[in-house]
Formats: sequence, structure tokens, C-alpha cells
Amino acid sequence: METVTLALSEAYALSRELLCRNGFSAEHADAIARNVTAGERDGCASHGLWRLLGIVDTLRKGKVSADARPAITDQAPAIVKADAGGAFSMLACEQALPLLICKAKTCGIAALAINRCVHFSALFADIEPLTDAGLVGYACTPGHAWVAPAGGTRPLFGTNPIAFGWPRKGKPPYLFDMATSAAARGEIQLHLRAGKPIPEGWGIDSEGQPSTDPQAVLDGAMLPFGGYKGSAFAAMVELLAGPLIGDMTSAESLARDEGAGGLPYGGELILALDPARFLGEEADRHLDRAETLFASMQAQGARLPGERRFQAREKSQNAGVTIDRKLFDDISALM
Amino acid sequence: METVTLALSEAYALSRELLCRNGFSAEHADAIARNVTAGERDGCASHGLWRLLGIVDTLRKGKVSADARPAITDQAPAIVKADAGGAFSMLACEQALPLLICKAKTCGIAALAINRCVHFSALFADIEPLTDAGLVGYACTPGHAWVAPAGGTRPLFGTNPIAFGWPRKGKPPYLFDMATSAAARGEIQLHLRAGKPIPEGWGIDSEGQPSTDPQAVLDGAMLPFGGYKGSAFAAMVELLAGPLIGDMTSAESLARDEGAGGLPYGGELILALDPARFLGEEADRHLDRAETLFASMQAQGARLPGERRFQAREKSQNAGVTIDRKLFDDISALM
Repeated sequence: METVTLALSEAYALSRELLCRNGFSAEHADAIARNVTAGERDGCASHGLWRLLGIVDTLRKGKVSADARPAITDQAPAIVKADAGGAFSMLACEQALPLLICKAKTCGIAALAINRCVHFSALFADIEPLTDAGLVGYACTPGHAWVAPAGGTRPLFGTNPIAFGWPRKGKPPYLFDMATSAAARGEIQLHLRAGKPIPEGWGIDSEGQPSTDPQAVLDGAMLPFGGYKGSAFAAMVELLAGPLIGDMTSAESLARDEGAGGLPYGGELILALDPARFLGEEADRHLDRAETLFASMQAQGARLPGERRFQAREKSQNAGVTIDRKLFDDISALM
Repeated sequence: METVTLALSEAYALSRELLCRNGFSAEHADAIARNVTAGERDGCASHGLWRLLGIVDTLRKGKVSADARPAITDQAPAIVKADAGGAFSMLACEQALPLLICKAKTCGIAALAINRCVHFSALFADIEPLTDAGLVGYACTPGHAWVAPAGGTRPLFGTNPIAFGWPRKGKPPYLFDMATSAAARGEIQLHLRAGKPIPEGWGIDSEGQPSTDPQAVLDGAMLPFGGYKGSAFAAMVELLAGPLIGDMTSAESLARDEGAGGLPYGGELILALDPARFLGEEADRHLDRAETLFASMQAQGARLPGERRFQAREKSQNAGVTIDRKLFDDISALM
């Protein structure tokens, strides 16, 4: 397969240029370009340059604002609100994070509610500025109603990712970012394309029966990870990043889409906690306990979440990113 | 089997009397008695009157303070700290909750760190005062190192429960309280006593191999629920209710116990979020979205977590609680 290798600066410039030419404001083009470049850099192709095709398509279909300026509100001593105004989430997140960080450092814990955004991006990118600032971060967002609750038979929850980041001195953060569904919808679609059955436990058909047929599951419902426990976490995400912040549940997001196949629309909740405020002068001593925990995990062969991403990042920073020639051509064709 | 039925007031009075006679201060006896009575009332026998035997045993062995008065600190605008001083967690929690609630209502979100407590109680009891106050609650605590991380072979995490509660007008809260391990340690012990194998996925033997032999798993390691995803949540609990609040990880708690078989010792983190602060005047309208979510779950046969507990509670409030005569006699013998 023919490939194209781009330095990170080139990948960013290409993305930004494409987005500007298609009508995104400079601010949005910049935030989106940085996000997809970061995904590609970290070896997450599913959140990398490939996304540009869908982003431009979403804009051309009139399903996302090209230039809404986020409205940031100082809602309460420990709450920031960012109204994305129907644009992608990233610019609202970027512009609100400084106030969130300030509030977390003042109050000890603070929350950011992003509202009315079109959402496709990985949550880890929203958490890293927090861990970079020495804070603990937590983020979640609903999606489209594709996942049945445990004990149920019909789609109700989104794939509802939860991300958590823990800052480490001189090291990449401990950071997980994972769907509360058993598998990603994209993985089921890949099995369909390859004509392969999916593992048991990923989904049920439209009669509510367990199925390993990818098409039957796409027409039926995906399942949460870990049975009723994972299902409880998925419901928690619906509540925290839906009603609590005055935004849509996954069922409402899917209903709003009216079968157009667009991206989820709604809210995202981000929490930031400041270890320095919890611990005062003893912070360093206690944060060492976390390093002992990580070392104990690694000593027995357990991987720290995010490890692979940070390894891919180091490699990309030197060697750039390599994408299929076809993807490069498809992107170029949208210029 | 012979049984004894007690009105809730009798169960409470019996518990309180037993605890006072064994040396607990009136304040601690009251908080503990209310907690175990609530567990029995809610049909959670594992957190009910049966616990009194272990509580008294722990005191007699000198492993818990009978009378430490919690030291409550106003740590930051949105952080309360409660130092339990080596006593059980409940009194510290009860005495700190009013300040946590006040801070959450002022700031929008707030955290309570309970430190240096002996912990055996179910987290739902710590969350309900928050949902009663119209707040969203979240709690977690480590335990003793009994659970191996996904991909690992040796115990490192506790069963690390996470509880989450959502307030509902005129209805019991949506409230889950669940271990991040695949099963409770007590369930494995019950299988051992019954001479039955345990289901696959609950644990591994001391060589790190999957096992259905309960003794082999008790000597080896339990497993998290839901594979690497559940494992990531278990690690998150270690970090949030350990180093972040200046307290022990599960490995440290077990090491401190020195093989005595005592209860976990360490911290608990509780978060409270105020929907009224997030939503202002639109709160009621948005909270209705949550009711739609719950109705959609129930319409397809999915249970709301906590439902069974609230049904048991209603029954107990009228009919009292029924325990084995042997348990009643064992409790009486400790008077």
C-alpha cells in the first residue's frame, strides 16, 4: 500500500488549510487541526487525519457551525460553562480550560460543562491540559443511542466514554479514555466489512437476542462492557453530561439527527481536582504512593493505560506520521 | 431455621446498646448502629446486624478507636477534610456531610476526604444524605490488596467500590454501589464453604492462572469486573481515595494489617454536585430528561440500581427485620 509521511507540522498545516478553505473560522480550523494531528501523532488513527473527511462532510451538510464563538460563563465558584453554539467541541473546551484550571486551583475541585457541541473527538485531548497543569482530570460525554442497558433489549445509551488522567512529574500522565460499551461501533463496522463474526458479548439483535452477526447488532443494539456494572457507568455518563449540565441524552441526540447519520450533539462534563489543594505541603510525599502503585502494576506485567499512545507520540515527533496515499488524496481532493 | 423479628427501632436499640457496653462512645455507637440497621433494613444482610460481631471483635483486638472525635477541616473553598482518627468511618462522614453539602451548594461541586478510618460500611449510606439534599453524589474507597490488575498476576487493588447517586423528586434516588472486582470476596468464601466451584473470570491462582477453585483464588488473586476497563476504574479508586487525599492504597492497607485479618484502613472520597447551581432556573426542565431516561430503561425491562434495596426498605419499615436466632444469640452473648 502506498503511503505518505508528513512531519507533525505538515499534518497540522494541511489540516488547517483544508478546514479554512472549507469555511471554518481560523479559530475553529486551528483547534480542530491540532486535535486531529494529535490523534494521528498518538497512533489513534480513528481520531486522526481520517476524521477530516467526516468533519468537512458534516460542515457541507450544514450539521455544524463553522464559526460560532464559544460563550464562556462563570457559572459558580467551581463551575464554568462553555456554550459551543453548535460548533465542534474543541474550541469551546480550549477556551474554557484556563478558567477551569484557575477554579480548580482556587477551590480544590471544579467542573466545566460544555454545551451544544458536535462531538467526535477523543476525550484524552481534553484531559491532558489538566494533567499538564498538575491536576487530576475526569471527562465524559454521551453519544447517539446505540447501546442497550444491561437487562434491556433496545438502544438507549451512547458508547459514553469516560476519561481519567493523573499527573506524574517528569512522565506522561496515567490516562485512560474508554467507551463504556463492550466495543467501539467502528470495530463492529470493520468486522462487517471483513465479513467476520463479532465476539459474543458485543451486542444483541433487534429481538434482544445475543448475536455475533455484525449487521444484526448494528440493527439491534450494542452492549455495555462488564454487564450490569458497565451499564451503570454508562447511565451515569448520560446523567452527568446530559441532564446535570442541561444537555441532551444519547436518545435525544439520535432523535435530533433524524436518521441523517450525523455526529452526536450535546454536552461534555470535565472535572478537575488539584492535589496541591487536597494535600498542601505533603503533596509530594503522597503523590509518591501513586508512583509505587504504577510500579507495582508494571512489575507484574500490567500495562498502564495510555502507554502505547505516549510511545507512538515520541516516535511521531521524530519520524512524523504515515498515512495511506488514498487518504492523503481524499483529503487533498476536498481542498 | 429459627428466626427473630425486630422492629427497626429495636434493631437500632439492640445495636447501640451492644456497642456502648463494649466501650464505643455514645456518638460512635449511634452512628454505627444506624448504619448496620440501615443495611439490614435495606435487605443487605452483608452490611446488616451480622456486622456487629466483627465490629466488636475489631474493637476488642484494639484495631479501631472506640471514641476518637472526628477532626473536620475546611481545607479549601470546595474541599472538606475529616480525620477519623482511627475510628470507623461513619461518624466522620456524618459530621462532615453538612459542610460538604453547604460547599456544594455554594460552589456547585465539592469534595469530602475522609482520612484514617477503619472501613467496612456500604457507600450507599454515605451518598443518600446527598441525594436527600437534592445533590448528585459520588463516593469511592480502596480496601485490602486482593484484586490483580488486568494483565497482572498478583493482588494489588482492593475490591474498590464506587457509588453514584442521582436525586429524584418524590422517588428514591437512582443509586448504584458496586465493587470494581468481578465478585465480592464474601461470595468466594461462600462458594468455598459450600464446596462449589466459582464462575470463570472471578479470579486467578497464585501462579496467575485462571481458576474456579475458591481456595486457590483466595490464595491467588481476585479479578476486576469487565477486564482492562474495570481494572482502570479500580486503579482510579486507588488514586482518588488514596494518594489524592493523602491516604493509603490497598497494598499499604493490607501491609499495615500484618496478616491480622482486620478491616481495611485508609480513606474515602466523596463528591457532591448541585444540579441547581449547574442549571439555575432551568433545573426542573432538565431533570425531567433524567426521568425520561429512567422510564426508557424500565420500559425495556432494565432494572434501576438500588430498586431492590428501596423495596426491601419499605417492607422493613412496616414489618421489621428478621434475622437468624443464632445471629441474635451471638449478638446477645457479646453484651
